Amino acid sequence: MTVSLFPAASFAELRTHLVALPAFDDDAARAARARQDNLTKPPGSLGRLEDVAVFMAGWRGTARPRIGKAQALVFAGNHGVCAQGVNPYPQDVTAQMVANFQHGGAAINQLCRASGAELSVVALELERPTRDFTQEPAMSEAEVLEAMAQGAAALDRQADILLLGEMGIGNSTVAAALATALFGGVATDWAGPGTGADIAGMNRKVAAIAAGVARHAEKKRDPLAVLAAFGGREQAAICGAILAARMARIPVLLDGFICTAAAAVLAPLGMDALAHCLAGHVSAEPGHRRLLAALGKTPLLALEMRLGEGSGAAVALSVVRAALEAHDGMATFAEAGVSGA
Amino acid sequence: MTVSLFPAASFAELRTHLVALPAFDDDAARAARARQDNLTKPPGSLGRLEDVAVFMAGWRGTARPRIGKAQALVFAGNHGVCAQGVNPYPQDVTAQMVANFQHGGAAINQLCRASGAELSVVALELERPTRDFTQEPAMSEAEVLEAMAQGAAALDRQADILLLGEMGIGNSTVAAALATALFGGVATDWAGPGTGADIAGMNRKVAAIAAGVARHAEKKRDPLAVLAAFGGREQAAICGAILAARMARIPVLLDGFICTAAAAVLAPLGMDALAHCLAGHVSAEPGHRRLLAALGKTPLLALEMRLGEGSGAAVALSVVRAALEAHDGMATFAEAGVSGA
Repeated sequence: MTVSLFPAASFAELRTHLVALPAFDDDAARAARARQDNLTKPPGSLGRLEDVAVFMAGWRGTARPRIGKAQALVFAGNHGVCAQGVNPYPQDVTAQMVANFQHGGAAINQLCRASGAELSVVALELERPTRDFTQEPAMSEAEVLEAMAQGAAALDRQADILLLGEMGIGNSTVAAALATALFGGVATDWAGPGTGADIAGMNRKVAAIAAGVARHAEKKRDPLAVLAAFGGREQAAICGAILAARMARIPVLLDGFICTAAAAVLAPLGMDALAHCLAGHVSAEPGHRRLLAALGKTPLLALEMRLGEGSGAAVALSVVRAALEAHDGMATFAEAGVSGA
Repeated sequence: MTVSLFPAASFAELRTHLVALPAFDDDAARAARARQDNLTKPPGSLGRLEDVAVFMAGWRGTARPRIGKAQALVFAGNHGVCAQGVNPYPQDVTAQMVANFQHGGAAINQLCRASGAELSVVALELERPTRDFTQEPAMSEAEVLEAMAQGAAALDRQADILLLGEMGIGNSTVAAALATALFGGVATDWAGPGTGADIAGMNRKVAAIAAGVARHAEKKRDPLAVLAAFGGREQAAICGAILAARMARIPVLLDGFICTAAAAVLAPLGMDALAHCLAGHVSAEPGHRRLLAALGKTPLLALEMRLGEGSGAAVALSVVRAALEAHDGMATFAEAGVSGA
């Protein structure tokens, strides 16, 4: 019997459910590791591919996990902080890019096709941006919970792995604000050029983050209040999808800085809430490496990508597929008649 | 009209042909870069995927390269230096693993299936190991040229990309000896645990390399003589395949330490003979990072793999495929009606 996390009437109610998050299956993981050690290769010689196979085994609860269906979920939202001139692109681009996703013309469409993921795009009230966090909280508690529930509802429970991505003009500013509030430091520790801010744009971005973090300083101890303070809807939806995936024991591939900053909201909530999440890649956005280090995640890829949309997660899916193909398909020393060391 | 490099009667004859190696097509590369800059993403935001697309364009001579066929070639050989106790596995394992490749049970079979490469395995006189390089040159000039010709002949000229790998008990010792002779330093700079040597095994390995490098010191100025001195057949075949691929403008994905050390023989021969080669990954074998740095190659992946067989190149093929899918399939800003910055 699984507890349903959403809808939740309040942050307090949601927190009471988080003690019931499913744990890693140590028996399945041990059986997978034992299998790896008998396959026709020097033990450990497939490196992280072996670790990924064991990780997938533990979360799927089987010694020989496979990927039948891979779901990619991209959430899109708009942000009031764009009023501060933090992004060189007009906010209309969010909806234009959602249309591009729907018509198959974006990077994520091609990258999902290349790695065999089924893409769903969820646009979250694009016509109603969150509020400007330099002036007031970006979202109410109810708005956060509603977006989390939408994220959770978008999960395909038949999937064997979930890839997460986002689109939202201005949301690298939101991500840097979340990271600053959650992990400390100053805005310049976390803010980067995003879609390509110039020096003046970077200055506006850093100023907006600093103003927002100062305004909402009293919320630092409560990560869900931090999420409400800075937004946005796509960040809340990512949190909801991660929790729903955990309830269904579906491992998650995180994407870049913005996706990871959204996920980071869950880290302090207990039950090692991100334990079922792999870092798909480390992006060129400078705060991402620091953020992954803070979360204790080692990325699978480092390809200097900085696009978002789930693009890094989609490329990383090929590595996970490779890991499971090797794990499931290789012969053991005994099966192949190969001598040991 | 293409010059055929093989068969060549002597190293001197082979060298005379190397002045005719095809060059990178700058026009095709420029057209590919221009296309990248118009696709619906911030310019540069696909990072190395953009560079890989431009690289493929320049070598294939078209602004929109595709991968129809990807060939993986794995060469196997045996090594006289195993008489020095450099490897914990018996030499029979080379032939046993070739049989495993042929029956589909090895890592490379699964990884090629996962990334869509067609695997061919070429066993090179396994019953006739090269000579022990601590005592005499591993191969004659004629033997090297014969193995190079076999490597070149194995190339499928219909392929759009070539993945290279190797199998040969003892060949990480050969690779470290090649690297020491080609790039200088001492044996411990280049030797690593390979398939899993213990401390005593590592000592035997380092001693064998040092003895071989001292014995063949006078050959250092001639990379083809270095290849003959240390062997082996699979290393020579890799060199032949790389040159044949260059003649056909087929880009190459290199694998790990042993494959890269073989390729390194060609670097000093002129005409930027490895310009059409990408480093698929950096392996956990400690000398590989140093070797890639010496060659000026930045690996696509770093997954702590250390298996050989072409395994890292096979995983890296997915990254190249992702790069070309994005490059070819994405909409431009104008096509998608997305506003620019």
